[in-house]
Amino acid sequence: MERIECIVTAPHVFTMAGEGVGYRPDTALAVDGGRILKVAPREEIFARYTARRILDGRNHALFPGFLDVHMHMSACLLRGMAQDVGNWMMHGFFPFALHLDGETLRAGTRLAVLEALRAGTTTFGEYGMEADFMASLAEEAGFRAQVTVHFRETEDRVYAPEELYVFDPEKGRKGVERCRDVFERWHRRGNGRITVLFGPQAPDAVSLESLRRVRELALECGTKVHLHLAQGDRETKQMLWRYGKRPIPWLLEMGFADEHLLAVHLTDATEDEARLVAETGASLALCSGSIGIIDGVVPPARAFQDAGGWVGLGSDQAPGNNCHNMLNEMKLTALFNKIRYADPEVMPAWRVLRMATIEGARAVGLGAEVGSLEKGKRADFFLLDLRKPTMLPVHEDPLRNIVPNLVYSARGDEISLVAVDGNVLYEEGRFHTLDEERIVDEAIRLARPLGAKGAALFRELRGPNARSMEEGKL
Amino acid sequence: MERIECIVTAPHVFTMAGEGVGYRPDTALAVDGGRILKVAPREEIFARYTARRILDGRNHALFPGFLDVHMHMSACLLRGMAQDVGNWMMHGFFPFALHLDGETLRAGTRLAVLEALRAGTTTFGEYGMEADFMASLAEEAGFRAQVTVHFRETEDRVYAPEELYVFDPEKGRKGVERCRDVFERWHRRGNGRITVLFGPQAPDAVSLESLRRVRELALECGTKVHLHLAQGDRETKQMLWRYGKRPIPWLLEMGFADEHLLAVHLTDATEDEARLVAETGASLALCSGSIGIIDGVVPPARAFQDAGGWVGLGSDQAPGNNCHNMLNEMKLTALFNKIRYADPEVMPAWRVLRMATIEGARAVGLGAEVGSLEKGKRADFFLLDLRKPTMLPVHEDPLRNIVPNLVYSARGDEISLVAVDGNVLYEEGRFHTLDEERIVDEAIRLARPLGAKGAALFRELRGPNARSMEEGKL
Repeated sequence: MERIECIVTAPHVFTMAGEGVGYRPDTALAVDGGRILKVAPREEIFARYTARRILDGRNHALFPGFLDVHMHMSACLLRGMAQDVGNWMMHGFFPFALHLDGETLRAGTRLAVLEALRAGTTTFGEYGMEADFMASLAEEAGFRAQVTVHFRETEDRVYAPEELYVFDPEKGRKGVERCRDVFERWHRRGNGRITVLFGPQAPDAVSLESLRRVRELALECGTKVHLHLAQGDRETKQMLWRYGKRPIPWLLEMGFADEHLLAVHLTDATEDEARLVAETGASLALCSGSIGIIDGVVPPARAFQDAGGWVGLGSDQAPGNNCHNMLNEMKLTALFNKIRYADPEVMPAWRVLRMATIEGARAVGLGAEVGSLEKGKRADFFLLDLRKPTMLPVHEDPLRNIVPNLVYSARGDEISLVAVDGNVLYEEGRFHTLDEERIVDEAIRLARPLGAKGAALFRELRGPNARSMEEGKL
Repeated sequence: MERIECIVTAPHVFTMAGEGVGYRPDTALAVDGGRILKVAPREEIFARYTARRILDGRNHALFPGFLDVHMHMSACLLRGMAQDVGNWMMHGFFPFALHLDGETLRAGTRLAVLEALRAGTTTFGEYGMEADFMASLAEEAGFRAQVTVHFRETEDRVYAPEELYVFDPEKGRKGVERCRDVFERWHRRGNGRITVLFGPQAPDAVSLESLRRVRELALECGTKVHLHLAQGDRETKQMLWRYGKRPIPWLLEMGFADEHLLAVHLTDATEDEARLVAETGASLALCSGSIGIIDGVVPPARAFQDAGGWVGLGSDQAPGNNCHNMLNEMKLTALFNKIRYADPEVMPAWRVLRMATIEGARAVGLGAEVGSLEKGKRADFFLLDLRKPTMLPVHEDPLRNIVPNLVYSARGDEISLVAVDGNVLYEEGRFHTLDEERIVDEAIRLARPLGAKGAALFRELRGPNARSMEEGKL
């Protein structure tokens, strides 16, 4: 008998191997050194291995952990402050976001980690200001993080609606430098759990020169450029004024799209533009909930997939979405696309589950490490309690309804255990590496002044939420 | 000091009185005989009353319970068996629904009650076969039920795609009789918690004569006709063949629409048709999740509202939606309508909360009794835990973010206590009047044979789920 760290077993295992959900009944995983040594029938694993810890998921289903490929967790202290607003950026987000600082960004990130981890997210794709903090938090708390180093090059001031952004080349230069610096210090640290991507904000917010340099750096480092793309009118107008082209045609012409590009949103992209980007080998981070609330739009992700591109799912930010829950993103992705195409067969449950796991992993360059439960991969997984009313009853034949119910019925509290690298981080309502009470208290304490600081501008701008408050409706 | 049954108090109370959410800080409700005696500042209530039970919602928000105005809970043992299918009725639902019987219908209903109650539903609008069972369950378990007595008049057999349904007048006559019978035995029973509506299936499934008779009966009894209307192609075609008119123009011409009509779905209705129905004083049950999954359609509920009609929300059925959770219905209603109109300001959080409470209550004729926390109303409410990560942080000024976070972020496990008529039915994961273990075990046991019974037809029809199973994708 070989002695290993952990065996995890369940009557229903969704490995995500192959073209679908890779279902295997009564299966166990042998885990050691944070990796999956073997996936095999339960008896076979128990015949060969003994383990320090046995996670026996009786009445549970086992899934690979979710990848949330695009998050701004650092804005979490502003949850619920910017939805239902036509001009989200200016009338919703800006009045409060202006006052976020290091302390509030970090407290927000911790709060969002609590929320997402207990809903099954094991890989956190944070796009933010606090790359070093995020990386150290992942190192300490044991989750997997893909940290995107964000920078913009525009001068920090309010621009008139028809004014071309002014670039500050020094900001661009420093941004690229910071990408290199964070990459060198953090990439592949934390037992390999931390990876670093480069995040020039968007084609309208960074100069051609800096985009070129950061892209060269990404090629040199073998990582990706994570870029907001075709986000909407504002960006499209800036690109037309500056370069005479819409964002995607311009990007393609510059040769900036290939497997080193992870594009985000495509809110404003046509189906043809989406296809053209996908055909270069680039990937897409699709934020269904966020773009639905903020823009009332369903991006052309299906066209992107049809052209062979990988699409991952992202929860974006709490002031807007307003949650970091991959169950929510899967459900909304399936439903929104059915509505976009008036076709209930579009994006079935099993497909959006793939987007939240293996296809998301491929989209962000982690396809060889996570996203499925297969030999050699990292042991990131969650157990789903099949005795919760929302998951009942379980049918197995002729139709296995566990995945449809995970996608369309689960709330999040069915997830009873979450592990990364084989280490249990969350179990039955408790976090093993995070102090929930302290994080909650800190979030409450630090959030309080943010409202007051943004109040004057919020009232002056008098967006729909300000009017609803005045009228006692909210 | 006046001695009463119960005082419930919270730092944040959303009464739903007035035009918005009726917010009142640090407020308490004095409850006796199942009714709200008084809503007043906390100190005022405690100065005047002593209570047998004090529910002190520290760190909680207090809301009126949700009304789920259109449910087929009896189908719950088929959860997750019919989504992602173009022809939902025939390729999805039918192969399995065919085999539901009294026992499985009842076990499904019990399971759905567990699910919905712990997600804050206090009024259950069941449209089903088992009216007597539903009424007795509500009587015993203490929740509020609006039971619709369902009947159809078509001969029970498979019809060819272009074949006109054949009516069996005896079925129609018996259906109307059963409406009268259930009404006489159950309406206003259970301390007034049970009300009865009449449910002729749809204008194409019941003859003109029976529709006339059931409507007359509704007028005589002072209740409503709860009718599936403009559900889709199939119904529209039948109506065109039989009467030469689309369902809504026909219904209007027959004079069947007024305040005694509660129409469901309007999937296939134009905005003009929706407006015309609303202008008669009729109400609408909107099942956003269900119609989104089943048809990929967002019904014209906003046009209905703009014409002055009340709209309530319904979770429809688990084989399709696949859940009975009003948080889900609120969120999807807000998001789907933003997408339908490409406008993020459509259906803000406070408005969909009104649809799930006071406007839903008005839609189904219970506006004087429930849907808001006001003097004289029944004490149906839930407490929402504001220390759960999904509800954090709480901002109060200049924007109160509790309602947006309830609608867009809450999962369901933030709801820590649910009461009907002032009686606590659910508290911290436990049901006081329902045996969860037993209901779950029974659901598991009874569901098992249903799959096998439907298997041959499911495979023969070879819909997309059957193909996904064959291909190992599901």
